[in-house]
This record gives sequence, C-alpha cells and structure tokens, in this order.
Amino acid sequence: MTNFNNSKMNVDALFLGPKSENAVFFKEMMEYAVTEHMHWRSGYHPEDPEYVTTVDRYAPDYRDTLYRTEGILNQLSSKLKTTSIPWFSPRYMGHMNADTLMISNLAYVMAMMYNPNNCAQESSPTTTQLELEAGLDLCAMFGYDVNRSWGHITSGGTVANYEGLWVARNIKTLPLAMSKHPQAQHLLKDKTERALLNMPTNAVLDLIDELKKKGIFEEVRDMTCRGEGVEQGKLGKLLVPQSKHYSWLKAMDILGLGQQNIVQLPVDDSYRTDTAQMRQIVFSLIEQGEPILAVVAVVGTTETGAIDNVAELIALRKECESRFGISFYIHIDAAYAGYACAMFRDENNQFIEYEMLIQRYHNEGIFPPDIVWPKRDVYQSFRALQEADSITVDPHKVGFIPYAAGAICMKDKRIVDLISYHAAYVFEEVVEKGRKTEKPQNVLLGSSIMEGSKAGATAAAVWAAHRLVPLNILGYGKVIAAGLTTANWLIESMNASAPLEIEERKFEIVTMPAPDFHMVNFMFKEVGNRSLEKQNQLNKRLYELCSYAAGRSYTNDFLTSSTSLTAEEYGDNPQNFCRLMGFSDQEWEKTHSLYVLRAAIMTHCLRDKQHFSDFWQELKGIFVSKLQQLIDEENKVTHSKQKITL
Amino acid sequence: MTNFNNSKMNVDALFLGPKSENAVFFKEMMEYAVTEHMHWRSGYHPEDPEYVTTVDRYAPDYRDTLYRTEGILNQLSSKLKTTSIPWFSPRYMGHMNADTLMISNLAYVMAMMYNPNNCAQESSPTTTQLELEAGLDLCAMFGYDVNRSWGHITSGGTVANYEGLWVARNIKTLPLAMSKHPQAQHLLKDKTERALLNMPTNAVLDLIDELKKKGIFEEVRDMTCRGEGVEQGKLGKLLVPQSKHYSWLKAMDILGLGQQNIVQLPVDDSYRTDTAQMRQIVFSLIEQGEPILAVVAVVGTTETGAIDNVAELIALRKECESRFGISFYIHIDAAYAGYACAMFRDENNQFIEYEMLIQRYHNEGIFPPDIVWPKRDVYQSFRALQEADSITVDPHKVGFIPYAAGAICMKDKRIVDLISYHAAYVFEEVVEKGRKTEKPQNVLLGSSIMEGSKAGATAAAVWAAHRLVPLNILGYGKVIAAGLTTANWLIESMNASAPLEIEERKFEIVTMPAPDFHMVNFMFKEVGNRSLEKQNQLNKRLYELCSYAAGRSYTNDFLTSSTSLTAEEYGDNPQNFCRLMGFSDQEWEKTHSLYVLRAAIMTHCLRDKQHFSDFWQELKGIFVSKLQQLIDEENKVTHSKQKITL
Repeated sequence: MTNFNNSKMNVDALFLGPKSENAVFFKEMMEYAVTEHMHWRSGYHPEDPEYVTTVDRYAPDYRDTLYRTEGILNQLSSKLKTTSIPWFSPRYMGHMNADTLMISNLAYVMAMMYNPNNCAQESSPTTTQLELEAGLDLCAMFGYDVNRSWGHITSGGTVANYEGLWVARNIKTLPLAMSKHPQAQHLLKDKTERALLNMPTNAVLDLIDELKKKGIFEEVRDMTCRGEGVEQGKLGKLLVPQSKHYSWLKAMDILGLGQQNIVQLPVDDSYRTDTAQMRQIVFSLIEQGEPILAVVAVVGTTETGAIDNVAELIALRKECESRFGISFYIHIDAAYAGYACAMFRDENNQFIEYEMLIQRYHNEGIFPPDIVWPKRDVYQSFRALQEADSITVDPHKVGFIPYAAGAICMKDKRIVDLISYHAAYVFEEVVEKGRKTEKPQNVLLGSSIMEGSKAGATAAAVWAAHRLVPLNILGYGKVIAAGLTTANWLIESMNASAPLEIEERKFEIVTMPAPDFHMVNFMFKEVGNRSLEKQNQLNKRLYELCSYAAGRSYTNDFLTSSTSLTAEEYGDNPQNFCRLMGFSDQEWEKTHSLYVLRAAIMTHCLRDKQHFSDFWQELKGIFVSKLQQLIDEENKVTHSKQKITL
Repeated sequence: MTNFNNSKMNVDALFLGPKSENAVFFKEMMEYAVTEHMHWRSGYHPEDPEYVTTVDRYAPDYRDTLYRTEGILNQLSSKLKTTSIPWFSPRYMGHMNADTLMISNLAYVMAMMYNPNNCAQESSPTTTQLELEAGLDLCAMFGYDVNRSWGHITSGGTVANYEGLWVARNIKTLPLAMSKHPQAQHLLKDKTERALLNMPTNAVLDLIDELKKKGIFEEVRDMTCRGEGVEQGKLGKLLVPQSKHYSWLKAMDILGLGQQNIVQLPVDDSYRTDTAQMRQIVFSLIEQGEPILAVVAVVGTTETGAIDNVAELIALRKECESRFGISFYIHIDAAYAGYACAMFRDENNQFIEYEMLIQRYHNEGIFPPDIVWPKRDVYQSFRALQEADSITVDPHKVGFIPYAAGAICMKDKRIVDLISYHAAYVFEEVVEKGRKTEKPQNVLLGSSIMEGSKAGATAAAVWAAHRLVPLNILGYGKVIAAGLTTANWLIESMNASAPLEIEERKFEIVTMPAPDFHMVNFMFKEVGNRSLEKQNQLNKRLYELCSYAAGRSYTNDFLTSSTSLTAEEYGDNPQNFCRLMGFSDQEWEKTHSLYVLRAAIMTHCLRDKQHFSDFWQELKGIFVSKLQQLIDEENKVTHSKQKITL
C-alpha cells in the first residue's frame, strides 16, 4: 500500500457533504463497489449453466416479484425521508452524530456484497484480517505496544464496556482459584486472600504464563468464576464516576456482580471525577479491606463531554501499589472522545510535546490562531491512556463510521485467555516460509470476544477509514479539530451575544463552563426570572421545538438534544452554575435538576470563520423565532384561560 | 401498504443470482437508494450556503483525497476478490451461508445512508419502528400472541442466547428477593425457598404486576441478583443438549453463573436431545432438590441440524408442574432453523395441519412429489415453539439477510422489566387522538436489551425482507424448501452412487441418517479400510482440498465445511454409525471421533430436478478429481520416502 502523505488530506473531500457535493464521486464509487462484486460472481466458473434464463426472467411472477421489491423500497425510502434526522447538516447539533466518511460507507457496501462473518476466519478470510489491523491501529493510537496489545470491533461502546468488565472480573478470581489448586498454590508465595484480591493485572498475567508452563492453566481457569460462578460480594467494588453511562449498570447486572457493588465517584465543578474524593474513597476501601474490582475513568462523558483526569488515576494506582501493595484494574470508557487521541500523535505515531503540539496546530492550520486546545490536564489524560488496562472507543462516534461500530483495546493480549474458548487461535504462532511469526491464522474471533457472528463489512469500513484518515494530527486530528473549533466559536458567540428580545422580554444565552471536548451545553435564560423550575421548563420546551419531538425533523431549522443535570447524578455540582445564573440555593434545593440543551459539535463544515459567522447570525434568528413560537403558545394558553374565566 | 399476493413470489427474483442475473435491477435499485438520499440532502434547506464550491473541489488536495479514497477502495476490492468465499454459488455447500436477499442488501444501504441508531428512537425515528415490527413478525411466526410478546434484533444468535439466559436468571431471583422484602413477602403465601426457586415463569410475571400495583417493584428488583450479584451455586442448573453451541459456555461465564452449572443432556442416535434421559435428569435434579435454572432445546444444531423434541420438553415441564409443583424456564436456540417455522404457516398465519401441509407442499409445488418433509416429530417441535419462554433466531442464517442480524423473541413482554433500565419506554401506553394504544413512543431500545448502539439499517433489512417474503408457506416456505429439496436429493444421490474408482481404489460416499433440516453430513470411505483414523484423515484432507484452507476459494470447484463428532460432545452416539460403515468398536474406542464433511444446503438454484442432476454429475466428477489429487499426494510422499530410503 502506498504511504499516505498526510499533508494532502482535504477534510471536505472525506464526506458526501451537506448538499451531496460529492455526489458524482460517491455514485461512481458505489457503482464500482457493486459492479466489482457482480463481475466476481459472473467470473466464478463461467462454464456453469445458467439456472435462470433471460426468458425465465420475463415470466409474470418474476417481474411481479421485482416490482414488489421496488415497491417496498419505495415505501422504505418514504419512511426514511419522512422521519430521519439530518445528521449531515451543521443545523444538527445534538448527539454525537454528523456526516459519516464516504470511504466507510463505500467500504461497507463493497464488503457487504461478499457477506463476510468475522466470527471465524473461515467465513471471512479477508475481513478478519482487516479487523485485527483496525484494532491494532487503535492500540497504536492509544500508545499500546502493538506487539503486546490487541483490539477488536464490537457492536458498540456498551458491549466494549461489558467486555472490559468481564476480563477485569475473571482476572480477579484467578489468584483465588490458584490458591485452591495444589500445584498452583506455591506460585502465590503465601499471599493472604486480601493480597490475592488486589494483585496488579500484570502480575496475574505473568502467573498465567507460569500456569501454562505447568500445563495446568485450563484446570485453574475452570476454578475461576468462569467455571464456578460469581461469589456474591467477594470481588469488591467497581468505582465509576457519577457521570457514567448507564451501560455500567447493565454491565454489573449482566456479569452477575450486582449494581450495589458500584461505588459512584463524585464529580467536581467541571463534571470530571473529583480526584481528591476518588483518593479518599480508594483509601477508605483499602482501609476497610474491601477489594477494588476495577476503576473506570470516562474520557468524554455522554452529558458534558468531561474528560476524567486519567493521569491522576494512574498515579493513584501506583501510589496504592507502593504504599499498600494493593492494585486494581483500570478501564477507560473513551467511547466518545477516544478518537481524539489521534490529535496528539505525529506522523510517526509519537505523542507530541505540549508546546510543540500547540505550535503545530497553529502553524499547520489545524486550529485557527484564536483557539487553544486542549487544556493541559486534558492533554495529560490522553497521554496517560497507555497505562490503562483496557479502553472502549467508538468508531461510530468520533471515528465518523456508520453504525454499528464500537471497539475495545486491551493493553496486554494475554488477558484474552481468561475469557477465550477453544484453543487460543487469535495469536497462534505459526511458522511461515521458515520464519516464525505470530500472525493470526485460522482466527476464530468469536471464541475470544463477547459477541459471536459479526459483520465483516464493519471491519472493512473501519479499516478503510484508518487508511485514508490516519490516526494522527494530520488525519483524524484535522477532522476532529474542525468540530472543536466550531464548538469554541459557538460558546464564545453565545456568551458574547446580547440578550435576544421578543415582545419586550429578554433572553440570555448561557453556556456551561468551557468543556474538555466538543460538547456544548447551553441554556436560554429569561432576564429577571428567579424560578429554576420556569428556567427548566423554558429549555425543555425549546428542546421540544428543536428536536424530532416537534414532528418532521427535515422541516425544522435547527436540531439539538438535551439532558437534565440532576442532584441524583451529580450531587450539588450544578448548584454553583445555578448561582451564577442568579438562582438561589433554595431554588436548587427545590428542583435539584438543571435542564440543558446539549450539542456535540462534530460538523466539519463550519471551520472557516466566515462560514461560522454567517451560520451564527442565522442561528440567532432561528433562536428568536423559536422563542417567539414559545411566547405565542404561552399567550394562547393565557388567552384561552381568560376566555374560560369569562 | 398493499397486501402481498403470496402466490406470485418467484424465488429466483429474490436474489442477485450466481451469475448476477439480476444485475440490471440491482444496480438500478442501488442507484435509487443512493440517489434518493442525496436528493434528501440537497433538498434540506436549499437556501443554506454552499460551504464547498465547485472551485474548492478542484483544489489539488481535494482531488488527491478523492483519488486516495478510490485507491483504498481498489485495494479493498482486490483483497475481497482474492480471498472471499463464493457463498452465492451452489458450489458452496458448507456453513449456513448462501446468496442473500437483494431487498435486504438494498434496504440496508438505503437506511445506512441516513445512519440511524436503534439504541434510541430519537436517533432512529424510522428504523426503531421497523425493528419492533420485524420483531413481532417473528413472534407471530412462532405462534406468540403479538399483543403480549415482543422481539428485537441482536447482533447474532450468541447475544440472543445471552439475553435469554439473562432474563431466565433474573426472573429466578425475584421470588427470593420478594421473600426478603417486608411488603412483598405475603404475596408468596409461605412458599418454601425450594418452591420459590421453581416457580413458573408466568406466575413470577404475575407477581411483578402485583409489585407494581404496590409501587415496590423497583425496590424488590434491586434485591434480585441484578442488584446484589449472583449467589454462587444458588440458582441451580442450566440444562443444555450436548450438541450445544459454545455460546452457552460463554453465556454461563459472562452471566456469572459458572460453566460447572451446566448439565449436559445426552443426545440420541439422531443427535437430538434424548428425551428419556432428559426426563431422568430432570427428575433426579428435582429429587436432589437442585433448582433448574432453565432448559435449552436446540432447533437446528450447528453440527447436524438436529431438531430437539420441543413438544416433549413442554410436556415434561407440564408434568413437573402438576406432579411436583416445580417449573423451569424454557429457551429455544433456533438460531439455525427458526425461520423454518414459516413453512408451517398459511396466509393467515395459522399453523397448518400435518396432512394438509404435505398436500399443499405438493399441490403448490413447494416440494416436488418425491420429497416428504418434515418428519412428524419435527413438525410437532415447531408447533410447540409457542409454549417456550423465549426463542433465538438468526435472520442472517435462514432469513437470508446479510450479517449481522440475530433476534430474540419473548413470549411475555412483561419479562423485559427484569432487565430494563430507565422507565419502561418500550411499551408505554399512550393516548393518541383520543384512543388509548400501547404504541411504542420515545422508544429507548438500548435500555431494554443487552446491546446499546445498533445499526437501524439492519432493522430495515429484516423488515423489508419480511414484507417481500412473508413468513409463511408461500414466502420463506418456498425459499427454504428449495434448500431442503436439494438436501434430500443430494443425500439420495450420494447413497445411490456407485463407489468412485481412482487407480483401482474405491471410495464410497456415505451420508449420516436423514437429517431433520437441511444439514447434510457426509463422508468418503475407502472400500476395505478398517481404520477409523485413516477414514478421518481421508476426510480431513478432503475438507482441506474443498475449503478456504486450500488457498483461493474462488478457483476451487467445490467448497464445504467439516466437523468432528467426538465422544466428548456426543458420547458413544457416533459409534453406531461407525459400525454401519464397518469400523469395529475398538476403532471407535481408540479414536473417539468421527470426522464428517458438513454441508448446509441453502442454495435456491438446484430446486429443479434437471438442474440438480446436472449438478450432481458435475459434483461427482469434482469428487473424483479431489480424490485423485489426494492419491497423487500420497504417492508423492511414498515416492519421496522411497527416494530417501534409496
């Protein structure tokens, strides 16, 4: 494959575009994808008889079936056109959705024609290899050693999180199992049960090697929870930030660990895990003798895009290891922001020093001069990812791949043995043409991962994207920077905007403090309003007017999403912000919830300042008309109430 | 939607075809799918500025990026063409793969352009509805009441099996949780712990209703294993046939139940669960006071296509309920053969009486006169599916949908509450235009199923297939019958064939006894050979010559798959067959394994007797040349050994 000269990548040429600007190219390539496969069919044993002749094909029932096919596709198209969401447009600023990469759509279709199943290489000789390559691309991006790590595609971040917790759980029970096995006990050197439940991941994986040498690994593995089931309450606590995705609750249920064994880590003002409180919780669990099953850090929370301080978590683990001899598994849920790790890597996959990074961003036009991203601690978090045991990342979010494509990367591939079935095929050493390589052969992915059958086409889509858009500053870096730039300008414009005036009422646009990534949370606030409940109602109604809830999204001018920051999830953290907006503490106590409009800014279209300014002017106008609509509704209600009173 | 007049469906018009016979239609529709979306884009706010002008698009870096895109697609196409497997051809007879439905490929692409995510309706207003419809299509096919059941798409049968076991596990712990809750205890009427662990599914679901009325359901649910974790060994045994798919081992690991809590049900001569032994095992567990977590029956085993006697399992449960007051959950793994349930349903979704069924098959040309399918007990098994608590079925197998599309159907949708998160959105009652309907609104599928993000395009593919090919005798019935017909003819021809003669050696073709579905297991046997090991070697080598292992599949004349029927998995069942082939019991004792070639016959192309006869003549020739190749290799080895000796 020819090496990609990064500097030449044009972001607009990656997407079909909001007006289908690349329609001609896309159609040509689609035609190519389909035609190539058709010729592959007709070229396969051309001597074979024609089972269906051209005459057969003119039979009435034959034509009828084709016309019915067309009719159903017409109906499907109508349905899709009626209610789908125009992700592709910069007018959509809500969930982590935007236009997807042309190459991934095309690669998906091309591979789908061959219908590979990545469960087993026998059913996907091409795409299983592509999946392993794509997985290693992600490992390399996170700073894992590609010779020791591995990664694969999942149906999404949820399943990736399950798999992370699955390995964390099974690894936890291995030392306990060893302590019950007469030939394995001595390897543990008289460790106490407590010590066995708190070993470093690496140390347990070394033990696996020892067990394999003795030929008793599989016996011992059968004595872990995999064989014997989970012992209620034995494995300790899963520490997850309050800002967690609900998949962690599902994970604790599914894996038989119980949701009560989640310890929620409070978040700070910036909605990141509060590292001081995390320290305290970890230390107090250690003091109580309670094992720590795993600690999860979130890199890009679903609600505010907050990036946990991974570096401090890694440091905390080191401290616990040296001070108390106690370690724990670390999983990073980077489903949302994981791909942003590409922004820190140079063309040789080196993590760029901070000053150099900012310089390159500006010199090479990745960011305009007025944007400085990231904050230093965010930078440090990405740098520290390489120390985590496993990482969830979603190609179908900031990888700009169509659904469904999640992924998980594991730092040390030996960990797979704790969950795998059949022989360990994935990393089988093979002697090929005299050279010993650890090349995947006869790979049975389905026996080493959670899922079974899986579309090889997804692997093709991710692989092709990584080939065209390298996982570095000049590839994904450029694409992601476009959204970040827009997010920053948007926040700036919202905060600088004079209140919008409608019928003598004034509405300010307020944004939450500068986010770590490109999630902008904003609100409208009526000047003079002191009721938090009214404030929330206003924004909830605005959300309804700016979402699929208002009816056909296609005819809407602007689309966003929303969320409630509640005391249940975030403690009193939103209170400070409520105060800044002028709501009293009593108001917060009464409501315990702050309703915000939530916009992940992923569009690549507004990275030009002039384009953005024009868009912002337009958007302000839309806001005014939405507020007007809301006021009209209010007036109508008041009016009809008056009528009833009369 | 216009009603589909079943009688007019032409099977050949459903597929692209082995020579791309429907190329023109397919390309036209693909063009339509893509173009419709493109116009949707350009028609969305046409007043919006053009961010990328035609001049911009002629910039060198822009063209460069497009050309690179094309280059990567060229590479992908080369890779796919080099090593993919020609499923579409009748020359492929191995795994459950064949050509896939044109309409599903087209619907997938059409929907993918809009990139819906069926995790939440907000992200997939169109396709979430299609998924729920497609799920109910399957429920109706299995005989579930569509007002009480529900079904949804999964990434595959593996995940569907997990979900079945997940609900079975959680439901099992609800009565125990109730017994600990002061306001719930009395609902249990002083049942013993043993009785609590053995309640009928329906009775537990009724209790959920009671708990909801009291407003304490969520509290109690938090006290089930979902909240507190699994109690090791408490929930009893999962009974699964020896013929099980390895996903059941994974399921027991993942769900924290432990693989040791699987009790394997022995299979009989026909590789179905031995019902007499199943009775005995169930009774002896009851006697021991061991709870039965669930019993799994397989409808279409992966290796031999055997269809367990579901009716007898249902009857056994009834017997246990009335005799001992003990019940258990029943899950059916019908990943492979589930779609065949369509073969028994008439145009009004009524299960057709056996005699009438056979008559219609022949009168309406579903089967040729010489084929009588199914066996009566297989018929009864399909009829009994409606009594099972949940059923796994794979649209990407006998539904002829591209990967990855599995599904699970649940008889009583109240069961979802045991695994769901957030509010129970899926079945929210809504008042719409004055009428109270239980129409899904604001559906958050991700909170009621195992997976999170999922491609809405898959739902479109399954939905569209069900619209074009109804789930009845004249729809999927016709398509599946084509494969079954071919399977029967193939077995007949193999058994009637004179031994193949190569260099004075004779090779018989032997088939395993008539399968329940369209999985043909066959072997070559050298006349005079008494060594089972040699026999296995012969067939293993033949597999290698007829599979991707021989190199590029595209240049191969015939492709199949294989499996080993081992004593570990099947006890001494294969021994009888070995005897029939003339291998002594000592040979079986020595080898404990029978290597077979395994061919799922799913092609629709050979349902014409003349086509089949021609194909069979050709195939015999291929067999001769493969055997010749094998003998040549043997001779070469012997020759070179002689050379070394000299």
